[in-house]
Amino acid sequence: MHREDLADIVATVRQDMEAHLGRGRVADYIPALARVDPRRFAISITTCDGRTAEAGDAHIPFSIQSISKVFTLTLALNKLGSDLWDRVGREPSGSRFNSIVQLEQERGIPRNPLINAGALVVTDALLAGGDVEAMIAEITDFMRARADDPAVHIDPEVAASEADTGFRNASLVNFLRAFDNIKSPVNDTLRVYFNQCALRMNCRQLARAGLYLAHGGVDPLNHAKVTTPFRTRRINALMMTCGHYDASGDFACRVGMPGKSGVGGGILAIAPRQASIAVWSPGLNASGNSLVGALALQRLASLTGWSVF
Amino acid sequence: MHREDLADIVATVRQDMEAHLGRGRVADYIPALARVDPRRFAISITTCDGRTAEAGDAHIPFSIQSISKVFTLTLALNKLGSDLWDRVGREPSGSRFNSIVQLEQERGIPRNPLINAGALVVTDALLAGGDVEAMIAEITDFMRARADDPAVHIDPEVAASEADTGFRNASLVNFLRAFDNIKSPVNDTLRVYFNQCALRMNCRQLARAGLYLAHGGVDPLNHAKVTTPFRTRRINALMMTCGHYDASGDFACRVGMPGKSGVGGGILAIAPRQASIAVWSPGLNASGNSLVGALALQRLASLTGWSVF
Amino acid sequence: MHREDLADIVATVRQDMEAHLGRGRVADYIPALARVDPRRFAISITTCDGRTAEAGDAHIPFSIQSISKVFTLTLALNKLGSDLWDRVGREPSGSRFNSIVQLEQERGIPRNPLINAGALVVTDALLAGGDVEAMIAEITDFMRARADDPAVHIDPEVAASEADTGFRNASLVNFLRAFDNIKSPVNDTLRVYFNQCALRMNCRQLARAGLYLAHGGVDPLNHAKVTTPFRTRRINALMMTCGHYDASGDFACRVGMPGKSGVGGGILAIAPRQASIAVWSPGLNASGNSLVGALALQRLASLTGWSVF
Amino acid sequence: MHREDLADIVATVRQDMEAHLGRGRVADYIPALARVDPRRFAISITTCDGRTAEAGDAHIPFSIQSISKVFTLTLALNKLGSDLWDRVGREPSGSRFNSIVQLEQERGIPRNPLINAGALVVTDALLAGGDVEAMIAEITDFMRARADDPAVHIDPEVAASEADTGFRNASLVNFLRAFDNIKSPVNDTLRVYFNQCALRMNCRQLARAGLYLAHGGVDPLNHAKVTTPFRTRRINALMMTCGHYDASGDFACRVGMPGKSGVGGGILAIAPRQASIAVWSPGLNASGNSLVGALALQRLASLTGWSVF
Repeated sequence: MHREDLADIVATVRQDMEAHLGRGRVADYIPALARVDPRRFAISITTCDGRTAEAGDAHIPFSIQSISKVFTLTLALNKLGSDLWDRVGREPSGSRFNSIVQLEQERGIPRNPLINAGALVVTDALLAGGDVEAMIAEITDFMRARADDPAVHIDPEVAASEADTGFRNASLVNFLRAFDNIKSPVNDTLRVYFNQCALRMNCRQLARAGLYLAHGGVDPLNHAKVTTPFRTRRINALMMTCGHYDASGDFACRVGMPGKSGVGGGILAIAPRQASIAVWSPGLNASGNSLVGALALQRLASLTGWSVF
Repeated sequence: MHREDLADIVATVRQDMEAHLGRGRVADYIPALARVDPRRFAISITTCDGRTAEAGDAHIPFSIQSISKVFTLTLALNKLGSDLWDRVGREPSGSRFNSIVQLEQERGIPRNPLINAGALVVTDALLAGGDVEAMIAEITDFMRARADDPAVHIDPEVAASEADTGFRNASLVNFLRAFDNIKSPVNDTLRVYFNQCALRMNCRQLARAGLYLAHGGVDPLNHAKVTTPFRTRRINALMMTCGHYDASGDFACRVGMPGKSGVGGGILAIAPRQASIAVWSPGLNASGNSLVGALALQRLASLTGWSVF
Repeated sequence: MHREDLADIVATVRQDMEAHLGRGRVADYIPALARVDPRRFAISITTCDGRTAEAGDAHIPFSIQSISKVFTLTLALNKLGSDLWDRVGREPSGSRFNSIVQLEQERGIPRNPLINAGALVVTDALLAGGDVEAMIAEITDFMRARADDPAVHIDPEVAASEADTGFRNASLVNFLRAFDNIKSPVNDTLRVYFNQCALRMNCRQLARAGLYLAHGGVDPLNHAKVTTPFRTRRINALMMTCGHYDASGDFACRVGMPGKSGVGGGILAIAPRQASIAVWSPGLNASGNSLVGALALQRLASLTGWSVF
Repeated sequence: MHREDLADIVATVRQDMEAHLGRGRVADYIPALARVDPRRFAISITTCDGRTAEAGDAHIPFSIQSISKVFTLTLALNKLGSDLWDRVGREPSGSRFNSIVQLEQERGIPRNPLINAGALVVTDALLAGGDVEAMIAEITDFMRARADDPAVHIDPEVAASEADTGFRNASLVNFLRAFDNIKSPVNDTLRVYFNQCALRMNCRQLARAGLYLAHGGVDPLNHAKVTTPFRTRRINALMMTCGHYDASGDFACRVGMPGKSGVGGGILAIAPRQASIAVWSPGLNASGNSLVGALALQRLASLTGWSVF
């Protein structure tokens, strides 16, 4: 695909989304998310051979929220290797409804690292009883390196709001601790987790940051060895089967690319061997994924043939 | 990949499986399955450009069981189009344990067409109150056409045994009927279902039969338009997210290809744009999928790079 | 309490119910239930010392439905003794929603004999592979003897309708059979079950029939030894903890007597050492118990002090 | 029953328990419970007409744990009246396994006040955002008044240990808070709860404390109006249907009296209109109730005829 084609494609996607802007429901459990303009839309693509294309508000940062789980998973796999799988599974979780009952049934082993319970265990595995601020700094540095942009940062207002309202996550982390699957003090693990969720990035940075996942774990532009090809395939497989809560199957059917959504309206999608794509639109569908973002990726997959299926 | 390379690869896979032969537990709920030699192993590949390679017992037929769900899904999508999705979902089901509770919660709409509840609905949608024997014949004819081999047939002993022992399926079909999601008489739907599960095929036939799924719905060898590219991507996506019961995520991580297993020890896997692969080894792992078959596909993916991730 | 007082009390109860008549929703899954006048109301009391009192439509027969479970439980305990508890538990089932998931979790052992799954096992234990018609006759004879009235009979229209619409019960019995906790052919067990549910009795007969449960298992009027004091206490305890589906706790709080409801609008309640009471009013509350019937028993308990608490 | 008979009966019960002493498994999640001698046994009875009888270690204090839930429920009903039922249900919870899934399903309304989730809500309702130490003092004073003994106190070691290990309760309280069914700061509610569980009493004190429940809410000895007859019946009904976790039905069948157990090995049982009984033996059965304690009450019920059924 030529650079011009790519530019045409993102322009087409953006145009086709025009009629949908403002659909869905903006997350309102914390003020910083609630006040985002629901008609925002951005798409940004970075290809393995270094081309880029973007449309819309690609330079406006948003809260990446659960998309951070993909990156902490990368860090944790690098640190613990396959021992991580003793503490978290690799299976889709079925309906949202089942998450806690499964946790009980399966003795505190979350189904996968991309649901909240699993991501808390991943963060705890990374933290390993260590210093909270140092870990937050390490995650921030990792994201800056991946995005190739030192401007990436954590929004302290969001992190504080998450902590004030995060009773479900506090419930989960205590539940996991009761099964001895949280090793650090529960409040330490929560603090790192709330901070990683509060990372602010724009689509340009996010697409750039995910590029190693399209290229076997190596950043194709600066040749950084971020992780192994083996782990990269696992992460992509998990994004495919578990990346969109209880709408992961639907996303796989409609888009056909590994992806991870966040409640801030962002989605990171990977076209293996081709490109990394970030979209953003704040309105969420009933499953908590960006409604227009998923439509945009569906349109993009159709125009590019990037579905892996 | 040259023909010679493909032959080398399947030979390597087979050799590497030697040490594992006999592992797992052969299904024993019906006599015809219980008496199969647990050390059987076969692999067969058919590529989109017509090359084939095989190793082991690729000519010995086995009971394809749940692999048939992929083919009846194809038929039902052709017949009903997207109306089918009013009656069955597209999401992974989570743990096996949850299947019935989800069915209750979700008012009789099975999570996906590749679990038993969903496949019963698919079969019922195909049957649509029509003649049972005609439907069984239609499915058989479809499989013969796909396999390009009139020798494909249903094993009447297996079909009868399934009916004699199929209390869980009888429970499911009545449960679905209580939610009005079975339209034919329950015993008619069950009879078609038990017969489709009793299809006997060998790996050569099965790999050949699945080839249209690697080629956008068109058989690349005889150019038959089996289904649309759109539906093909959906079927592959469903095989990726839901094809191996509660080990679908693990299969996606390890193999990285859409696949569907059967309790007879077979697995059909699709390498989109490349090939269709059938493996067979009767010993099952704890999740009910062929233990050695999954290992063989993992090895094959590693040697060929056919993982979509 | 004097006979005159008892007559006054039932008259008061009936009068106090006047304002509530017609409330609730009449069961409409079969025609014979759907066409019952929703404003019917009856109460009948028989005391251990032979006094009786009644008000309303105490002579009009209705379908006793699940109330029959108390009587088949008595028969099964007499036949199998405590071996019955190997096949069915004695615990409340929690919410309706959980019934099947618990059945799966607990390997086909229903939580108690008063939910449908448990009653199917009780009926199957009674039938024990024997003759269906003989068993139906035995149950009918038992009810006639208990009611001291040969007019008690099974309504063939109701039994046929139950069979035509009983997909959930067919689902349950097949599910139980899959765990080997149904021993007779599934259709035989279902047939007996649908017939026992179709028993027609009026309140007078029903109150008389339950009297042995208020008197340690011996009929105080004709001295028939129906069951042992030990079993009587167990049956009453089960009625208290499990007799009203997922509103059993509420009934215990409000009425304080062991009771069993049926979807036909009847409730049998036992005042140990005092009396047996039957009420009937067809409108059901959200939990499937007679709305006005439960109110009437609450009023009765308040007037008589018959709450065991 | 004469005083001499009562003394004979408790002596007989104690003797009959001799062969069972040491059975069951002592709770070991906190040191103070783990080091209790497993062969301890005590029984104490106080009747409505002021007789008492006891045997064994009736003067040795133990941790009453969940038995405290009966008393905080009394306080909360006195304070909130029936508004309490907007925040907690009155139904048995089914198996332990279901507790959290039900909580999710039922939007944060616990099934009943005698399971942990429900007791946390009751304690929170009592606390109502008020002062933690004042509330702990109020509960302690209430227990001293009920036991007619100022020696009743909270064991600070136990309270501290509960707080150190109470991750499941911390999980529950955060979960309930997420549904807005905890109004005080979560740590305040937890602190009161851990303290009430740490109350130390002996059987003599405990039997005396429960006497109002056998006498319509009025202490028959000092005529204190503790609560209303109406609330007393509700509390007894809840103890009958929900007092022994997922063995409540079994306890109702075997003992036939309202009761509440604690993980410290104590059980309080009520014989309405007759007596209040406390037993203690530290070894627990699989359901977490005192194994020998339940046997002793079963024997007692058999000797006295105090089963309500």
